[in-house]
Amino acid sequence: MKNIINKKNISAIILAAGEGKRMKSKTSKVLCELLFEPMISWVSRSLQKLGCSNSEICIVCPDDNDSKDLIVLATNNKFCYATQKQRLGTAHAVKQAIDFIKNSKNDNILIMLGDAPLVSENILKDFYDYHLSENNSLTILSSEIKNPFGYGRILRDPNNSKNILKIVEELDCNQDQKLISEINSGVMCFKKQALLIALDKINNNNIKNEYYITSAVDILKAENQKIGAYNCQDEKVVLGANTRFELLKMNEIARLEVIKNLAENGIEFISTEGVVISPSVKIGAGSVIYPGVILKDFCEIGENCVITSNSFISKSSIGSGSIIKSSYIDNSKIGENVKIGPFSNIRPNCDIKSGVKIGDFVEIKNSNIDQNTSVAHLTYIGDSDVGQKVNFGCGCVTVNYNGLEKHRTIIGNDCFIGCNTNLIAPVKLGDGVYTAAGSTITDDIPDGAMSIARSRQINKTNWKLKK
Amino acid sequence: MKNIINKKNISAIILAAGEGKRMKSKTSKVLCELLFEPMISWVSRSLQKLGCSNSEICIVCPDDNDSKDLIVLATNNKFCYATQKQRLGTAHAVKQAIDFIKNSKNDNILIMLGDAPLVSENILKDFYDYHLSENNSLTILSSEIKNPFGYGRILRDPNNSKNILKIVEELDCNQDQKLISEINSGVMCFKKQALLIALDKINNNNIKNEYYITSAVDILKAENQKIGAYNCQDEKVVLGANTRFELLKMNEIARLEVIKNLAENGIEFISTEGVVISPSVKIGAGSVIYPGVILKDFCEIGENCVITSNSFISKSSIGSGSIIKSSYIDNSKIGENVKIGPFSNIRPNCDIKSGVKIGDFVEIKNSNIDQNTSVAHLTYIGDSDVGQKVNFGCGCVTVNYNGLEKHRTIIGNDCFIGCNTNLIAPVKLGDGVYTAAGSTITDDIPDGAMSIARSRQINKTNWKLKK
Amino acid sequence: MKNIINKKNISAIILAAGEGKRMKSKTSKVLCELLFEPMISWVSRSLQKLGCSNSEICIVCPDDNDSKDLIVLATNNKFCYATQKQRLGTAHAVKQAIDFIKNSKNDNILIMLGDAPLVSENILKDFYDYHLSENNSLTILSSEIKNPFGYGRILRDPNNSKNILKIVEELDCNQDQKLISEINSGVMCFKKQALLIALDKINNNNIKNEYYITSAVDILKAENQKIGAYNCQDEKVVLGANTRFELLKMNEIARLEVIKNLAENGIEFISTEGVVISPSVKIGAGSVIYPGVILKDFCEIGENCVITSNSFISKSSIGSGSIIKSSYIDNSKIGENVKIGPFSNIRPNCDIKSGVKIGDFVEIKNSNIDQNTSVAHLTYIGDSDVGQKVNFGCGCVTVNYNGLEKHRTIIGNDCFIGCNTNLIAPVKLGDGVYTAAGSTITDDIPDGAMSIARSRQINKTNWKLKK
Repeated sequence: MKNIINKKNISAIILAAGEGKRMKSKTSKVLCELLFEPMISWVSRSLQKLGCSNSEICIVCPDDNDSKDLIVLATNNKFCYATQKQRLGTAHAVKQAIDFIKNSKNDNILIMLGDAPLVSENILKDFYDYHLSENNSLTILSSEIKNPFGYGRILRDPNNSKNILKIVEELDCNQDQKLISEINSGVMCFKKQALLIALDKINNNNIKNEYYITSAVDILKAENQKIGAYNCQDEKVVLGANTRFELLKMNEIARLEVIKNLAENGIEFISTEGVVISPSVKIGAGSVIYPGVILKDFCEIGENCVITSNSFISKSSIGSGSIIKSSYIDNSKIGENVKIGPFSNIRPNCDIKSGVKIGDFVEIKNSNIDQNTSVAHLTYIGDSDVGQKVNFGCGCVTVNYNGLEKHRTIIGNDCFIGCNTNLIAPVKLGDGVYTAAGSTITDDIPDGAMSIARSRQINKTNWKLKK
Repeated sequence: MKNIINKKNISAIILAAGEGKRMKSKTSKVLCELLFEPMISWVSRSLQKLGCSNSEICIVCPDDNDSKDLIVLATNNKFCYATQKQRLGTAHAVKQAIDFIKNSKNDNILIMLGDAPLVSENILKDFYDYHLSENNSLTILSSEIKNPFGYGRILRDPNNSKNILKIVEELDCNQDQKLISEINSGVMCFKKQALLIALDKINNNNIKNEYYITSAVDILKAENQKIGAYNCQDEKVVLGANTRFELLKMNEIARLEVIKNLAENGIEFISTEGVVISPSVKIGAGSVIYPGVILKDFCEIGENCVITSNSFISKSSIGSGSIIKSSYIDNSKIGENVKIGPFSNIRPNCDIKSGVKIGDFVEIKNSNIDQNTSVAHLTYIGDSDVGQKVNFGCGCVTVNYNGLEKHRTIIGNDCFIGCNTNLIAPVKLGDGVYTAAGSTITDDIPDGAMSIARSRQINKTNWKLKK
Repeated sequence: MKNIINKKNISAIILAAGEGKRMKSKTSKVLCELLFEPMISWVSRSLQKLGCSNSEICIVCPDDNDSKDLIVLATNNKFCYATQKQRLGTAHAVKQAIDFIKNSKNDNILIMLGDAPLVSENILKDFYDYHLSENNSLTILSSEIKNPFGYGRILRDPNNSKNILKIVEELDCNQDQKLISEINSGVMCFKKQALLIALDKINNNNIKNEYYITSAVDILKAENQKIGAYNCQDEKVVLGANTRFELLKMNEIARLEVIKNLAENGIEFISTEGVVISPSVKIGAGSVIYPGVILKDFCEIGENCVITSNSFISKSSIGSGSIIKSSYIDNSKIGENVKIGPFSNIRPNCDIKSGVKIGDFVEIKNSNIDQNTSVAHLTYIGDSDVGQKVNFGCGCVTVNYNGLEKHRTIIGNDCFIGCNTNLIAPVKLGDGVYTAAGSTITDDIPDGAMSIARSRQINKTNWKLKK
């Protein structure tokens, strides 16, 4: 584990005002998702893990459409937000957060890119440690990459390699400089005062008439301030997504990294193909994940679970020892040693206790199912509270909707619900109740009663012959 | 966009008489499928896009089994067809189309291979433009490839590289020639008269006693005709499939190319694993495709749709904003903002209007479902016409078959069909009809009526104790 | 085909006492599964194919927890088993099988590693042939690998490359030796007498105080015995799994190899992504396997079958020409030209005869379904015997459980079971029986009778208005 950094010492600005044009997205680019989480969330999570408190993170949002509102929404309105009305360059974007910078109690300000989500907290920690230990006014996060074409090259002082002379942009590179493989990732750490000086002096005397934050190097150099670069040697820090295809490639990298970490922690994958697991998901050792499984939104899977092909689980917890076969589970709590599927659908707000068995073609919604109850097949349980050791036959329906309102069904312990029973809510079944197959139950049933609501069978012989 | 070529100027012959022996296929090799479309269809589509009219495309079919009939069937009998009774070489195959050649009104004849499906229309256009602009008698489509072993090498005139001296087959290559990486793809374009001359003179004086179309080079050379080669520098033009494993590799290349094109047009893929999309499918920008989704047979998916894992959609259109979760849809029309699934099955001939909600374990077949109707769970609707804002409870069945005939069920607007209702067709429900849960409806129900067909409930108390 | 080796001449010891610590597995490492089969089963299968009889294979098991019992269970108790109580090195492990060695009637003893499952029988055959033809006292199975770091290097005699001088461990390698890319796989073949001599003399005078079987090289060398190495040039022989991530990588290699072999035998894969097929599975030519399909546990699939996405089939046979769409099938027998799915679940002990059609959302369990019967949708058939040409409507249930006991349902030929019929077992329907939709059948129905058990429909007009 890395040392925890003093939380009081670091603020961060996330540049998030880029357009999504080449994404063909109607909203801001930073809201495009990587493993089901917006890119901006990856960046803010790394900052939080680094030790930034929420109030010391400022997101510079675009002004167009509802982009700012959507970014605020996606980040739960828990950070500071600034707006860049015109896109006049990266330094201009940072300048929109000038009040945030001035009000910051911290001595160092980190500049992050909202669409470069793969700068991990470990890299940030090492980078920031280096910035502090070198007592730099400005430290650039750099990396060596195979194909540096198009990136700003890091020009180090030949006499003192810790000393950065310049960032040379592609167009300005001479032949020798084009061969430099160490490049600027775009992530920078400034001493607060150095940043204020730079922002004050950066101009737009260049071809595009834009204000570039990289100009800070020349400005601070002229002021004899110390500038360094931390080479993290990880190509991922420069990965951003300008198109859906680039986003797809980044998804692939992130996807395999999540899976690799899980595999190293004792999770078994037969094949990882089609498996997509958000970084927020936790899985216990000994669990087995089949191809095509999707786990997202802070799911917690216990130990020794088996999740077979194409299960799709979000916002849910699954107790240890449970087996989920090719089923959907959304926003629900599943106990230990539960069996579900194949082909069932657990909709939001279910609390399914340990030992429950849910078979095939079963939908459960907004219901509590107590221990060791069995719902084997082709059944719908909605808006219900079901006791322990209840046995549902095939084709049962809790009729929770009458066309106007929804009502609850209450079932006690040890009941036996016959096949194709309709339970018309509101209705209450006591403990030990038995309903006959094919019955429609409209009235409450007391403890220990058997209830029947069907017609007698009549056999018309030789009917086939007659017909 | 490339310029459209004058349609009157080009005819094409597709050699499709190869055997499928190494495919272990009982039918012709060209009927083996790439992304769910026979290889021969890829070739004919490229030709159509190049500007060939159907009547100026001739397919040379094999004579064995039903291969010719099957090829005619797979291509909808819309081209010309010739038959090669014996397999005596490529020139012999072309010769079977001699009447087609002689009758062609066009000055140029393209020779294509029916089992080389990845020669795109763009390559063909550039190739054909080159043929015309150089005024060649014969132009060979060549490519540089990494491992040229086994291919005929293109020998260019050292003094005039536009001038082709020879195609040298592997066995005849000297050491220097073996190093040539430009090879013959098998695609050729002839001036009609040059082709007729060549076909007349090609002999089978070689080890295998076969007639090779490549011999045309030597023959036309001897006639002082101009021969060129257009190097498309795309290895895919030589990709053919002799075995299922080669076909699988080609599928992989084609699959990723289709996906890449879609991603670049604003379609989002979380992971492409298991995703198979035929080239005939269209998808609108902003739509999200999950792993394992299969889309084939001219599907049209609107904008901002979400199609989750393992949905299998063929011959259907899906309106914008619709969400399809893990469901099958075949030969149906789905409106805008429709929700389907997870785990539903829309069988052929359904017309499902906008705003309809179809939940889990629902089968719909040969039915029209009007706007904003809801079919939430475990229901079968077959041979039915359903109005707007109808609510189906769980477990409803339209009983469309009585063992002898199928009949239709007609349901008006604003109906409420109680859970586990059977509607015995033919039957008609007016507007605003309400059926009680558990009823079997055999007779028509007028507008605004409530219909019930079930027994009263009897509770037998202390039954469990007695038992 | 390789020559069959005389079965009487070879015994084998499998070292299987390794821990699963880094696997984070509670049981022995050799029980971790590769393509759904424990690694130890891969090794024993290769030995059986080489010609080892079961009684001449000895597995050296660990002593901790229930590991030995579990290994015996997983291998059906059909081999010999020894126990290594302490982990004191590979030679110590072999020594635990000393009685097995002494009692062996064979002249040669093969030492295998239980966690190196990808040493194929073909490699073993060539290796063993080499051992015999060279008349070696000890032959090492070696391979050249790209990155030999960490492996024992094979030092060959520069004057006679067939002669092995030494295995040099990484730590003892000089600069030149570090460059040797031929390494020891761990598989060795001894003459029985040479092995006994070596086991007697190997000591633990080394840093770790362990007994290494590789010390046999020096010992036998000193005795002037002939030592060779067979370089199989296949990196797979050194692949073992110490972590779940390594196991995952091995799964990937094995998975693609199985698929490649099948493709070369005429099986069609559109894309192999998510496809996992155990090596014990057989598939007939012309069958098509979609992405995400899992086939395991000795399944036999006939010719020209189609198995679509995410079907999960285990311990079952499927007749030729059958189509299985996205369904689960376990421990059942499916006839020819059967159609199942999408989304059905065939549970253990079903015998489904040819021409049967099972549609969507159908569960069948422990039942016999005779030819050409149709079960189209949303139906459960359990513990039943169903005749030929029976038609089940939608929503039928065989009520096999009354809360206390399970009973069978017997249905004759040519029956028509109306939609939402409950058949309360035990119950018997004769031939040609017809049940009315919505009926609950409690009593037997004679041949040719129609049975009805439902209430008359009452329409309450203007009900909606009143309400």
